[in-house]
Amino acid sequence: MVYDEADTEELAPWRSPIARALHRNSSLPQSRYLQLATVNLEGCPANRTVVFRGFLEGTNQLKIIADRRSQKIEQIEKNPLAEACWYFSKTREQFRLAGKITVVKAEDFDAKLKQIRASVWREISDAARVQFSWPSPGEKRSEAAAFELASPDKIETLFNFCLLLLEPIKVEHLELRGEPQNRWLYQRDDSGLWSTLAINP
Amino acid sequence: MVYDEADTEELAPWRSPIARALHRNSSLPQSRYLQLATVNLEGCPANRTVVFRGFLEGTNQLKIIADRRSQKIEQIEKNPLAEACWYFSKTREQFRLAGKITVVKAEDFDAKLKQIRASVWREISDAARVQFSWPSPGEKRSEAAAFELASPDKIETLFNFCLLLLEPIKVEHLELRGEPQNRWLYQRDDSGLWSTLAINP
Repeated sequence: MVYDEADTEELAPWRSPIARALHRNSSLPQSRYLQLATVNLEGCPANRTVVFRGFLEGTNQLKIIADRRSQKIEQIEKNPLAEACWYFSKTREQFRLAGKITVVKAEDFDAKLKQIRASVWREISDAARVQFSWPSPGEKRSEAAAFELASPDKIETLFNFCLLLLEPIKVEHLELRGEPQNRWLYQRDDSGLWSTLAINP
Repeated sequence: MVYDEADTEELAPWRSPIARALHRNSSLPQSRYLQLATVNLEGCPANRTVVFRGFLEGTNQLKIIADRRSQKIEQIEKNPLAEACWYFSKTREQFRLAGKITVVKAEDFDAKLKQIRASVWREISDAARVQFSWPSPGEKRSEAAAFELASPDKIETLFNFCLLLLEPIKVEHLELRGEPQNRWLYQRDDSGLWSTLAINP
């Protein structure tokens, strides 16, 4: 993606500890997995592991992918609030990222979002792409043959493919290795400015 | 704890895959960490890492400890619904455990719960126990001296120490290693019977 300068947000102050954690834990594939909590249609918490697909260029938004047939899509469309919990086991630190999710679907009109959705589709692996043509997730198990499908085209983004953009407004960082542990709270005010506060673990 | 036979629930069908996952991932300390999602007082999802302290003997309830001054206590007292997401990185499998949490506090009247809370207090490490005498979690960072405290007594359970008991009523198990992935849904009906269903990943 190429962005105009006007589109570029300042890096939030929690971006540098996250970049450091990603770097220091890069030998572990699961360091790109985080748990995304939403509220379901009945008002109950829902929580599942998702894969971090990088930050949207020029922003502080986390990219995540999802199947439009999955429950999280209808949950987020009804209530876009989410908190992601991201634990890095090698450096023993946790980030909690609370904010709102934007769902980018096939029928999205916004030209820039359309283009971003298509570019993430191209970037993911064949194994990740084929899942969007599988039988409906969460339904009674289909027979094995229903999953034997050729990899979808890289260019033609499948209808079921959604991009989620999590825009944090409050981030907490906990380092378990401290003695006592270190913990920081980052909050964004209405004007978009971030504050940083050391808090008790 | 010694239980009467009448107190003993049948092991739920998801207990054996969890026991297997714990065993196979036992070389990784973080395999006892799970992410607990609740709904906060404003109706927003909240999500944090907690430590699995075993199952309550004779039940399918997960034991977790918490500080009564932490936000999760007031959240759970207002809305006891929770979903824990437990990812095992070595075997690449995930459990989602949805249910209700019981908070066992210092003033709990129930003799059995009182005894369980005291026994978990004795089992945890000195490093875990001392945290319950630290300055209030989440508040502006106190000076270092406020954390320099002797380990609390093993016998006298501190007031701030709470035991959480998560009783799942719906459990999902996803094995990423399958081709396609394997996924099961376990649900408990009103009479306490569990059903098991293979579902699409």
